[in-house]
Parts: sequence; structure tokens; C-alpha cells
Amino acid sequence: MAILVVGSVAFDSIETPHGKVDHCLGGAATHFALAASYFTDVRVIAVVGEDFLPEHEAVFTRRGIDTRGIERAAGKTFHWTGSYAGTLNEAQTLGTDLNVFERFEPKIPEAYQDTEFLFLANIDPVLQARVRSHMPKVRMVCGDTMNYWIKDHTANLKKVLRELDVLLINDGEARMLSGEQNSVRAAEKVLAMGPKSLVVKHGEYGATAFFGNRAFPGSATTPRPFRAPALPLADVVDPTGAGDSFAGGFYGYLASQPEMTPAVFRKAMFYGGVMGSFAVERFGTERLQSVTRDEIDTRFELFREISHLDPAV
Amino acid sequence: MAILVVGSVAFDSIETPHGKVDHCLGGAATHFALAASYFTDVRVIAVVGEDFLPEHEAVFTRRGIDTRGIERAAGKTFHWTGSYAGTLNEAQTLGTDLNVFERFEPKIPEAYQDTEFLFLANIDPVLQARVRSHMPKVRMVCGDTMNYWIKDHTANLKKVLRELDVLLINDGEARMLSGEQNSVRAAEKVLAMGPKSLVVKHGEYGATAFFGNRAFPGSATTPRPFRAPALPLADVVDPTGAGDSFAGGFYGYLASQPEMTPAVFRKAMFYGGVMGSFAVERFGTERLQSVTRDEIDTRFELFREISHLDPAV
Repeated sequence: MAILVVGSVAFDSIETPHGKVDHCLGGAATHFALAASYFTDVRVIAVVGEDFLPEHEAVFTRRGIDTRGIERAAGKTFHWTGSYAGTLNEAQTLGTDLNVFERFEPKIPEAYQDTEFLFLANIDPVLQARVRSHMPKVRMVCGDTMNYWIKDHTANLKKVLRELDVLLINDGEARMLSGEQNSVRAAEKVLAMGPKSLVVKHGEYGATAFFGNRAFPGSATTPRPFRAPALPLADVVDPTGAGDSFAGGFYGYLASQPEMTPAVFRKAMFYGGVMGSFAVERFGTERLQSVTRDEIDTRFELFREISHLDPAV
Repeated sequence: MAILVVGSVAFDSIETPHGKVDHCLGGAATHFALAASYFTDVRVIAVVGEDFLPEHEAVFTRRGIDTRGIERAAGKTFHWTGSYAGTLNEAQTLGTDLNVFERFEPKIPEAYQDTEFLFLANIDPVLQARVRSHMPKVRMVCGDTMNYWIKDHTANLKKVLRELDVLLINDGEARMLSGEQNSVRAAEKVLAMGPKSLVVKHGEYGATAFFGNRAFPGSATTPRPFRAPALPLADVVDPTGAGDSFAGGFYGYLASQPEMTPAVFRKAMFYGGVMGSFAVERFGTERLQSVTRDEIDTRFELFREISHLDPAV
């Protein structure tokens, strides 16, 4: 089934110990859409400026992504500048030029109205809620957020959380949202805010899924937490978009499956890690554009091999 | 087969958000020995003072641990004071009274000479090397260290590393020892110093094993890294000794097996995590004294369940 993602399409200027790129295509919706496109049809709602050229749109369309929801506005595309040092676990933001994104009013094309799987990437929770309310046929909603919305837009964010089947955030965001240092207590508090499940990303250590009391996924009882590994990588060239690529692999796989079960959810967590591991191998979206489904499935097996008790030998 | 551990037996005074204890039995050798005792016979070489009473020795003997190598010296037992806050991932040392430990000269009882599995807990690498050199029948050596020895006793430590089958350290120690921020590159550099394998502990995120080029464990080629989970715990009462308990479960299981294979190594990583997860449930060694083999194996299955693709249900 098709996924609709609403979020940012941007240009990123990034410096890491491996080099530097200027104005490469990025944004949460871009990384998410590319990663998910290996599993299912993807539709995008975003806004770009006059500097968004046919070559940029081709990055989406070459992967079969539906770009009818990418609105062109007068002005420049959202531009993010950041750098990474040390363990590359955290970006230092050097500049955020919102440009056309500042006045982003998501418009849902008629052709997108039948979408059943919605991903609310990291944008103003007011816009997340608005998109959700205009999608009557949606049967699963997955969302992301960040410290800025958690800290200063809490009430609006909490309205969105009640609508979510899956909230995907990182450790720091889970602690900030819950006010709890312990990860299990933090998860319990976040789940009490409404999402049926919570996937907490740990960067190079993988991710953990926690489930609330509402029967999900496809299980009569509350499933236990599930821990998915990340791949130990010697060369993390550019971590930008790793979390969005995780979300794309995770949700793309979920949407591609005929039914939701605990086993499907687990495989989705692995595919999330797989897509995140590809994303960081090159700057920007380079690797997400060139990877093949065969490589994805080979790496899925590698994830299994490095985390399961029975070695492949 | 019996394991011999050489390391500290101590009294710990600990404060965590869950409470406070004064002079409870602790030390690396103590946690290690108790955790390993659920899998195999354990022998201890350590030194204690006049304040080490029969009730303290009984903690060892009740678990069948051979205490003939625990030397009594005039003076007080090593005393560590520390506290934990926040995520409880790191201890703040408030006091280190070495006492009798300052003049520790390990003496190997005649009855220990046939030991085949040696664990060098975190002590001066000069002493680690000396014990190793006096154990001619040893066929496997596993060791630990800490930032103090890495920083100021590098040359001595490097001599020990060349003798190790397994080096068990945490992320920060791996980075410090290698001078590399990236965990895979750090592991490569540490393995180049000599140990056949390296187990890096990630606290609440589990542990990763890396293998060098020398055929180990029981494999013709270099095995891939292996990632073992940790259990998400709502109540970490006292993290003291978690790493030593991991080592005890890991090495105790290895020593109990008839041969070393990649599959045995993986199970050992899981048992390490299991014993670490019990250790932190209570202050000091309380939980390690009372846990049962049934509880251990039930938790082992839980570790499998939270990390493997096929859910139990």
C-alpha cells in the first residue's frame, strides 16, 4: 500500500571528518521517501523553492516516487547547514534558513486522498495534525518530532501523539518528552501520551520498540520490547538523514505487508536499521539513490547474522 | 572447567537514586566470581583486611567458590565510595581507599596450578602479567582493564594484551586505548595490539564482540562482529559490578562448554548480559547471591525473545 509522507525537502550543506558538501538534496521527507521507495509506493507532500530544479525532482521520480504533492513556491528551498565531529552521533546546526518552508501550508492532492499509510515527518505538530485530519481513509499513522517541538510546542505535539500508531524518536527526545532518565520509564510515560507503540533510536546501537496497552501490532496482549541492532560501520561518512532513512525502511516494509503482526513489526525494525546503515555510507542521499533491493536483502541477512544466536558459520 | 579470577575484593559505599549502602561486599573479583559460579567452579586470588569477616567469606563459600587464594593481610580491606545520577551509566568515584590492596602481591595456591581458564580482572597490568606467567597450564585468558591503566601504564598493559584470548572493556576504554572515535576502527586497532577477540560493553545497549585475524573462536575464518542486547530495565538500583558480572556470566559459560565455537561464544555474550541484568537489580551482590539457575535460563530466553526475529508467540 502507498505511503504518504509530509515533511521537509531541503538542501543541506554538511561537513564531517570525511569531507564537505554544499547544497546537496536532503530533508526528512526526501530521505524517508527514498528509503521507503524500495518497499512500496511513496507520495510526498512538501514545499520547495525556485532553486529546486528538474535534476532534483528526478531523484524522486527515478525511484517512482509521486511528486505531485511537492509544491513550488516563490523563493528559495529550505537550507540546513551542519557539521559533525567526534563519534558523529550528534549534528551541530550552523544554520537553518527556512525560506519557503516558513510559510508551508500542506495541500493534499486529490490523488492522495485514498492513502492508508501516513508518515508525519518532523514538522510543526499543528501541520501534522492538520494533514492527519484531512486523510479520512488513513489506517496507520507513524510520526517523528524533535526537541524544538517537544520543548516549546508541547500541547500541540500531545494532540498528535494521541493519533499515532508509531512514534519514532531518539533517546534524547524520549528523555525530554517524558522527563525520565531511565529508558523503560521514559517509554512508559511516552506511551501513556497516546501512541500505540514507540520506536526509540539509539544511533550506532540500534533501536528499541516499546508497546502500549492498546492491542498492537496484531497481538492480543502487549508485546515485549524488541531490540534491533545497528551495523558496526568503520566509515560513517555522513549521518544526516539516518533517522529518516530508518523510518523509511521501517514504515515502507510495514506498508508493503498484507497484515500487521509482531513478526512483521520486528522485520520492519531490521529493515529500518538496514536503510539507516546505507544512508550514512555516502553524503546526502547518494547511497539511498543507488542501493538495490538485492543489497538491501543481503544486508538484512547480515543484520540477522550479527544478532542471532545461531551463526551462519 | 574451573576458572581462576585475580582481582579486587572490596567494600563499597554506594549512593544511587534508589538509596544508599555503606560498606557492602563488592570488588571486581567478587562480582565476577559470583556470576561465574552459576556456570562452573571458580577460584579467587585476592587480598582482604581484618575487617573481612566470616559472614563475608560465606558469600563466596555458599556459592561453592574456592577462597583458598584470598589472602588475609593486616589492615583494612579496599574500600570504594561512589555515586550515580541521571542515566546511571557512569559512576562518580568519591573515594578510593586501597588499604591492603596497595601492597597486593598475588600468590597462587598450589591447588590452583592446574587452572585452564584465567580471568585477569581490573588490576595493575604488572600483576596481571605476573599471574599469567605463573600459570603454565592455562589455555584461555580473558582480561579487563580501565582508563587509569590505559592512560598511565600503557606499555605494561600492552604486554598483557598480547596474551589475551578475550579483552572485555567498555566503549570509552576502547576509544581511549585505540585513540579512535569510530567503534569499528577502535576495535581493529585494539585487536592489532594482540587480543584474539574484543568484547566492548555498551551499558544499557548491550555489547559487541569483534574478532581478530587469528582463528578464534573455533572458526577457520575471522567471524563477523556479534551484537548482544541488554535487557531494558525500569529499575536499575545499583550499576556497580555490572561489567564484572557480565564478564562472569560470559566467561563462566565459556569455561563450562566442552569446546569453543562461534555459537558458544554468542551464547556466552547473552549469558554475560543476563548476569549483568541481575546484578543491577539490587545493591551490591545481593541479587547475584540469590538468583537461581532457572531464573538465569528464563532470562536467557527473554534475551533471545527481545532480539530475535521470530517472536515467541
